Amino acid sequence: MSANKAIMLTPGPTPLPPSVSNAMARPILHHRTKEFGELFDYMIREMQYVYRTKNSVLMMTTSGTGAMESAVVNLLSPGDKAIVHSTGAFGDRFVKIIETYGLKPVVIKEEWGHAADVKKLIKALEENKDVKAVFFQHTDTSTGVVNDVKALAHAVREHSAAVVVLDTVSALAAEPLETDAWDVDVAVTGSQKGLMNAPGLAFAAVSERAWKVVETAKLPKFYFDWRTMRKSLKDSETPYTPGVTLVMGQAEALRLIRQEGIENVWKRTAELSDYTRAWAKEQGLALFAKDPAHILTALKLPEGVDGQALIEEILREEGISIAGGQVHLKGKIIRIAHLGFISKSDLDAGFAALEKRLSRVRA
Amino acid sequence: MSANKAIMLTPGPTPLPPSVSNAMARPILHHRTKEFGELFDYMIREMQYVYRTKNSVLMMTTSGTGAMESAVVNLLSPGDKAIVHSTGAFGDRFVKIIETYGLKPVVIKEEWGHAADVKKLIKALEENKDVKAVFFQHTDTSTGVVNDVKALAHAVREHSAAVVVLDTVSALAAEPLETDAWDVDVAVTGSQKGLMNAPGLAFAAVSERAWKVVETAKLPKFYFDWRTMRKSLKDSETPYTPGVTLVMGQAEALRLIRQEGIENVWKRTAELSDYTRAWAKEQGLALFAKDPAHILTALKLPEGVDGQALIEEILREEGISIAGGQVHLKGKIIRIAHLGFISKSDLDAGFAALEKRLSRVRA
Repeated sequence: MSANKAIMLTPGPTPLPPSVSNAMARPILHHRTKEFGELFDYMIREMQYVYRTKNSVLMMTTSGTGAMESAVVNLLSPGDKAIVHSTGAFGDRFVKIIETYGLKPVVIKEEWGHAADVKKLIKALEENKDVKAVFFQHTDTSTGVVNDVKALAHAVREHSAAVVVLDTVSALAAEPLETDAWDVDVAVTGSQKGLMNAPGLAFAAVSERAWKVVETAKLPKFYFDWRTMRKSLKDSETPYTPGVTLVMGQAEALRLIRQEGIENVWKRTAELSDYTRAWAKEQGLALFAKDPAHILTALKLPEGVDGQALIEEILREEGISIAGGQVHLKGKIIRIAHLGFISKSDLDAGFAALEKRLSRVRA
Repeated sequence: MSANKAIMLTPGPTPLPPSVSNAMARPILHHRTKEFGELFDYMIREMQYVYRTKNSVLMMTTSGTGAMESAVVNLLSPGDKAIVHSTGAFGDRFVKIIETYGLKPVVIKEEWGHAADVKKLIKALEENKDVKAVFFQHTDTSTGVVNDVKALAHAVREHSAAVVVLDTVSALAAEPLETDAWDVDVAVTGSQKGLMNAPGLAFAAVSERAWKVVETAKLPKFYFDWRTMRKSLKDSETPYTPGVTLVMGQAEALRLIRQEGIENVWKRTAELSDYTRAWAKEQGLALFAKDPAHILTALKLPEGVDGQALIEEILREEGISIAGGQVHLKGKIIRIAHLGFISKSDLDAGFAALEKRLSRVRA
């Protein structure tokens, strides 16, 4: 126990609203009861509101990575051609998952910090007319970059019959997304970011066009089989015991999002990101991403500052969690999230902790 | 809201001890911090205590079914021979999972309510010398039957080089299990039964003999890949964002189990089951299982009683959850659990609700 109040500026898990924690601490429901079924249906309907879709929304008890894998195994068959347009660590994860199942995806790799270039995607689509699915991220938390989902999805539709698979794990309920209007076939996400819930649930919004592909996809799956989930959905339940407390928390978090209005959630996230960037500019800290998202701000550190040591010291001494860089960016950048239940006062506390230590380096 | 206090006599989710609910409502930890790492390590060590093993214990964010699938994909390769000794709905699930991956398991099927016959297993092992893995349940919640795990595991060791895979999802921390002394290679379980936590976490205890098989197993897996989990375990973390609040709850539930002592937990469960059977005998209700487990009591209903309507009425009018029959037993049996945080007073309330309604039928 310390005198510090824990403050999380990390891009998932994000802090939980007190009413969400309280909802999860209520007496647990049995998952084959009318009461749970009604809560589950409410949650699914509100997920459609957040996704801006009329498509069916499936729920899985798993991490975001499990939901990414579920998209691969439910949409592809051995020998199928897939394109991955990778903009960071999570794009590379799609490549690894697809390769795990013996397929060789066509990979377009952007330099970390750059958004997916639509021209490169169009070229790949023209060279691979028989592509079955195109995978890309909405935002990549490893770099804080945001993709132009509307333009990418439109390019896929114009140049192929492929389904569009969007990983919006780190972007849903933070960056604007219009699943139906932008014609996104599959959008997978996790509970622990913009959705303001604890980690452990994942979702997939699946279009009718995608369902036709799912019906014939041959890669093996049991727990992640979307067909079984869709069947159970009609009975207001899941095929296997779901994370019941997490559903109770998610329903409450979605109630909060509805109350605020999804457009206002997007606006709030953008305001926090603008606020952080104004502060960074004052401090002379440069943005890492060339095409920065609103979900988080990745900042380059001054020469000679060990980013890993910096964030560890701040957590130890002040109880404030800030994320560092991943893979080759470890120690070189810090990442400050604006997702979910993160407030301006949380950011101010983080800024103060950073300023104090950065001024020591400058002195 | 009703005047009734919710009472759960269902075999998972089981009711949660208040301190477990409170632990999950504490400020959420980030999963890449020292504080979480220490809690995670503690949880893993205490799981070894509950499993009675020195083997590595892996944690997954998934349902029990996900853990069952993880055993299949981490132990088998295309063309491998496997035996499933099925004693109910969950044994049949192992068969379905293995078939999903294109393998044809040798299936020994017992009549529902009967334990696995060791002689039948020995015969199958002698006819299939090249078998790679043998799968069976500790208890099957569909019928309330318990298997003689020690004898079955011993038979596998005596007659083959196969690994022993035990599904103890519904039995761990309720029925006695000696993972190491009985030489069980793999034991998978879920958080929501004897472990007194909310659903969403699953575990696998994996022996060194099993790890040798895992290293060469070729079935595809990404999220469920045990090799990645073992690697992360050394750094006190999981490969992907875990169900953090569920880990917080599990650590507290394991603290309660340690405080009581695992042998006392087994004893308490057996006492509740004896208590229930004495009551059933008085009521003239026959046990469904020929080889009944202590985790739950499955009772046949008198002719003319619709079991489904009965339990629905009790839940609606008194807030008490009792499980019905599954598959072909739907409406024909009821199942009263003795698992985890279920008390004698909970059972008394259930008995009173049942007596009141059964006496109406008899009158």
